[in-house]
Amino acid sequence: MERTEIRVIYGDTDQMGVVYYANYLRFFEAGRNEFLRAKGLRYAELEERHARRLPVAQAGVTYRQPARYDDLLAVETSLVKLRRASARFEYRLVREDGALLATGFTVHGCVDPMGSLKRLPPEWVERLCVGEALARAGGG
Amino acid sequence: MERTEIRVIYGDTDQMGVVYYANYLRFFEAGRNEFLRAKGLRYAELEERHARRLPVAQAGVTYRQPARYDDLLAVETSLVKLRRASARFEYRLVREDGALLATGFTVHGCVDPMGSLKRLPPEWVERLCVGEALARAGGG
Amino acid sequence: MERTEIRVIYGDTDQMGVVYYANYLRFFEAGRNEFLRAKGLRYAELEERHARRLPVAQAGVTYRQPARYDDLLAVETSLVKLRRASARFEYRLVREDGALLATGFTVHGCVDPMGSLKRLPPEWVERLCVGEALARAGGG
Amino acid sequence: MERTEIRVIYGDTDQMGVVYYANYLRFFEAGRNEFLRAKGLRYAELEERHARRLPVAQAGVTYRQPARYDDLLAVETSLVKLRRASARFEYRLVREDGALLATGFTVHGCVDPMGSLKRLPPEWVERLCVGEALARAGGG
Repeated sequence: MERTEIRVIYGDTDQMGVVYYANYLRFFEAGRNEFLRAKGLRYAELEERHARRLPVAQAGVTYRQPARYDDLLAVETSLVKLRRASARFEYRLVREDGALLATGFTVHGCVDPMGSLKRLPPEWVERLCVGEALARAGGG
Repeated sequence: MERTEIRVIYGDTDQMGVVYYANYLRFFEAGRNEFLRAKGLRYAELEERHARRLPVAQAGVTYRQPARYDDLLAVETSLVKLRRASARFEYRLVREDGALLATGFTVHGCVDPMGSLKRLPPEWVERLCVGEALARAGGG
Repeated sequence: MERTEIRVIYGDTDQMGVVYYANYLRFFEAGRNEFLRAKGLRYAELEERHARRLPVAQAGVTYRQPARYDDLLAVETSLVKLRRASARFEYRLVREDGALLATGFTVHGCVDPMGSLKRLPPEWVERLCVGEALARAGGG
Repeated sequence: MERTEIRVIYGDTDQMGVVYYANYLRFFEAGRNEFLRAKGLRYAELEERHARRLPVAQAGVTYRQPARYDDLLAVETSLVKLRRASARFEYRLVREDGALLATGFTVHGCVDPMGSLKRLPPEWVERLCVGEALARAGGG
């Protein structure tokens, strides 16, 4: 699990006075990026060196309490499932005072530039798992 | 079911050359707005006249094929469940040539300015149902 | 001059209850896209067939009256200056009732994939000018 | 002058492979927020306690070199002009290696809930100026 801090700006909010619902997926992406960085992986490298991408196949968010302007948030990102050509991340969005604001997940396929599913590079599989309690199995 | 057209702009895409995953929730919101308008309802009125809001409690997206810059899309929005204080919408994102790009849903609670769950205004319940094949029931 | 309609969604607003200031540049982009389409030009084609892009070198907005949720807006886009390797567009953002909400401009350079300034394709120059009252001159 | 760090995410980029032009205004806002915080001021407090807001009246950006995914950027925010009811901020967006990517400005009016121009609260004027080399004068 990795934690990424996010400070809510005006541009994240909507006129309900809270963070707009789509922006939680932006926060999750920031968490995912830092997760990879913490494992010594750079997504840009996956694209450039391995010619692989990890497009999102599915995403979901459960909104518990609203995040607000100027809140200092932490996204806690975990890798919970890793298959040959797919990965599932889960996210917890927590406020400075410890309140849990939202949870969510993304499922990613590993694809080549043509969009065909491909195995994750072995070096990535190895590093992704470090320190994560996850279900590894065969399948897609 | 209501259809809303959306033209993809550069600002919707990311460097993968496709629409950024969070922006599908923006498209769904545009669809939801038009759905209400088509039923003779205005969300702004719900806020001003009834002092009710419909914050999103849960949202999910399944990404099938990427939407791209300049694509002309249609969001097909349906109300599929209506309870006393909640509603579930489902969305299909379809490209001009008929290809189904994404599906998704949002669940909304009806709340007062304090954030407490409240019944939807009867006039809204009546109008929301017009022409929709939905499951109505008790519960929250 | 071309007009493009835009319906303001929740995701465009911020907690001040008005459209977030950065989103006016999104609206201008939508206007620019429709401007090109109306002249029979597609920006995607400029990229793919001519290997040219038109990145923004400068942008400015003057905010007069706020745009709000559910407003039906029109972006009026004009090409006001065309040089060998650059173009200047101006924008007026007008509400349904005729109120002028914002004005702005963007200046674009025409570049190749390496980022070097290049002449606009002649076919583009010709079409861009149709119906526009603009200052054509030498220079960059 | 205050510095704010920003890590570019995928959601900031567009399909040109660079940060979308509107998002620089988001970065500037993040810089402005940190500027205020560093002076011991909170924008949320201006709204709640003083019933004043600082909507943007004008904004401009000059784009020099593109910011890219995963870049670590710093926004350098300065207050350069302070009048009775308005303020002008200037921004420099600098990459980790020192390259200057963009410059820009915003002009803000101080308004009450009705949108009428009002003097900035004296406490704000005092604090805003600390450590800034700025032009103070009468007028709007």
